[in-house]
Amino acid sequence: MKIVGISGSLRKASWNTAVLHVAADLLAGHELAIAEIGDLPLMNQDLEQDGKFPASVERLREQISAADALLFATPEYNASIPAPLKNAIDWASRPANTLAGKPAAIIGVSPGALGTARAQYPLRQTLGVLNVILLCQPEVFIGGAAQKFQDGKLTDEATRDFLGKALTAFVGLAERVRRG
Amino acid sequence: MKIVGISGSLRKASWNTAVLHVAADLLAGHELAIAEIGDLPLMNQDLEQDGKFPASVERLREQISAADALLFATPEYNASIPAPLKNAIDWASRPANTLAGKPAAIIGVSPGALGTARAQYPLRQTLGVLNVILLCQPEVFIGGAAQKFQDGKLTDEATRDFLGKALTAFVGLAERVRRG
Amino acid sequence: MKIVGISGSLRKASWNTAVLHVAADLLAGHELAIAEIGDLPLMNQDLEQDGKFPASVERLREQISAADALLFATPEYNASIPAPLKNAIDWASRPANTLAGKPAAIIGVSPGALGTARAQYPLRQTLGVLNVILLCQPEVFIGGAAQKFQDGKLTDEATRDFLGKALTAFVGLAERVRRG
Amino acid sequence: MKIVGISGSLRKASWNTAVLHVAADLLAGHELAIAEIGDLPLMNQDLEQDGKFPASVERLREQISAADALLFATPEYNASIPAPLKNAIDWASRPANTLAGKPAAIIGVSPGALGTARAQYPLRQTLGVLNVILLCQPEVFIGGAAQKFQDGKLTDEATRDFLGKALTAFVGLAERVRRG
Repeated sequence: MKIVGISGSLRKASWNTAVLHVAADLLAGHELAIAEIGDLPLMNQDLEQDGKFPASVERLREQISAADALLFATPEYNASIPAPLKNAIDWASRPANTLAGKPAAIIGVSPGALGTARAQYPLRQTLGVLNVILLCQPEVFIGGAAQKFQDGKLTDEATRDFLGKALTAFVGLAERVRRG
Repeated sequence: MKIVGISGSLRKASWNTAVLHVAADLLAGHELAIAEIGDLPLMNQDLEQDGKFPASVERLREQISAADALLFATPEYNASIPAPLKNAIDWASRPANTLAGKPAAIIGVSPGALGTARAQYPLRQTLGVLNVILLCQPEVFIGGAAQKFQDGKLTDEATRDFLGKALTAFVGLAERVRRG
Repeated sequence: MKIVGISGSLRKASWNTAVLHVAADLLAGHELAIAEIGDLPLMNQDLEQDGKFPASVERLREQISAADALLFATPEYNASIPAPLKNAIDWASRPANTLAGKPAAIIGVSPGALGTARAQYPLRQTLGVLNVILLCQPEVFIGGAAQKFQDGKLTDEATRDFLGKALTAFVGLAERVRRG
Repeated sequence: MKIVGISGSLRKASWNTAVLHVAADLLAGHELAIAEIGDLPLMNQDLEQDGKFPASVERLREQISAADALLFATPEYNASIPAPLKNAIDWASRPANTLAGKPAAIIGVSPGALGTARAQYPLRQTLGVLNVILLCQPEVFIGGAAQKFQDGKLTDEATRDFLGKALTAFVGLAERVRRG
């Protein structure tokens, strides 16, 4: 299975980018490539010319189009979707919507207790209208990140086990979608 | 009253930017300056150095800090806040949060029937946690924009009247906040 | 296919109950039974005794358990899910959650322009965490009901056609879920 | 100040009802009366006759009308507002909306980590459109209730201190609203 991972944070030391690397390990046997979204221009339809998008946007759209499934890892910025992630989705959704019909799951890591719930529900609203087929359960809210990660590694075993189970459910969803 | 208007769309022909110009007319006696948000970098905390932000971010933050009130005009991108608007808010909210305590109102213009309701509620969630003092009522959902605007002018009289009333309520809120 | 319809309104003259009757016509070949939810007690876990629910709750739970698919028709009360509908869902969700894995679609009829969008998104959030498999597209927002219904009949042909298409997509989803 | 407290749970052993009793202690010098909402009928406009509501509804509406401020304590049922609380609000909002212009704050207690965030944001959406003047910050998410409450008493000192500060902010808001 070809999986594209998208992190909502552009920070080098991002826990959400880190958790995508953990997921890549746990998804052994599948390919997880993390998309670059930091070089996209801010969403602006005026940048579309004759059905062509800026080069970085074309690259992202092709990567998503070729994916069997999508894995989002998102922080919560101001009780909603981080701007860089919304920007990537807004570009990816332009006709023809490259996200439509893709199975997807959402993970979130935060220093506080909520585990990015306030970002994940707005994100579900957005991905739902785009016809993304979202994994409903389990939801993955990883709070208290400072206690669970060390040097970018997920050292909390219970969290790693839970994440592994969530990813198994995600792969199961993706396989059901592929069978049609 | 110094009011800063922020349009969620970067398109030159944006209805939401156009409605801010209409609002500037209707707010005669007050100053409405439309903020530039199209040249901001994508939100990335790594770009903050020693408490300094990139120059375009500093400019936006100073403009908001100096404002008596904020007027948001937003399209709806994928049932949520457009990326350029979320990006501006994410930068403006970095400590010290420049939005805190500012009175604000939200307007939305869309070609479809919903008048950007699906963007406005997530936007309210975000602005609320940032301690922005939002005008509750009336809400301004301007649907069917193609019938109401001609060459960037709001030609529908009923909509103009309603917008005028909403702006009067907005100014009233801002004056109450200024009195403390 | 055995479909259970649930209307969010208890009013006799409800447009949302009326649209379920229209749906029953359009779903010829399938059975659509409208659930009674008006005689449920207000949600209160103290009313559960030794794993037994009040009789009206047991009846609803059995009806949902036996259904192949669920069709919700909901007004919007105060920008959210009407209390009677939330009440039915809260009872139906008690362990063992009778809604889990059921395919479902949402319809909304309103006198205003929004077509109950502000109820449908909170409803999607609730049904999603309950593992209901929701039809993403098309969404059905029927605004301006007074012009489209006459004496409880849906007389607007374009709306009827659109509703028919949405129901076809709904049945398609339900069949895919049944095949597993 | 006359404050009406509304708990979203009808359970006798409810943590959210318990936290209202804690709030009553902390609000010494003000009167906090907890509203009865368990005997309301399910929302149904057909029960309104000649502008009269059922007796239990009239009682709640009068109690809210006479209040200086409202304090909501809500569990989270299925990632949204509990049915009994939504039911009380739906009745209270019928014209003339008794909630309009009332200052209010929201508290939530849950056994899990989220502290009812998923109920509080939909509740904010609903109360906002009803022109309730909501305390934005601090938000009160009390997770891990089993470790913080003993026999219905809030024994966790840090939580009690934080709650006290939130209630001070709430009273401040209510006083500003009363001054107009």
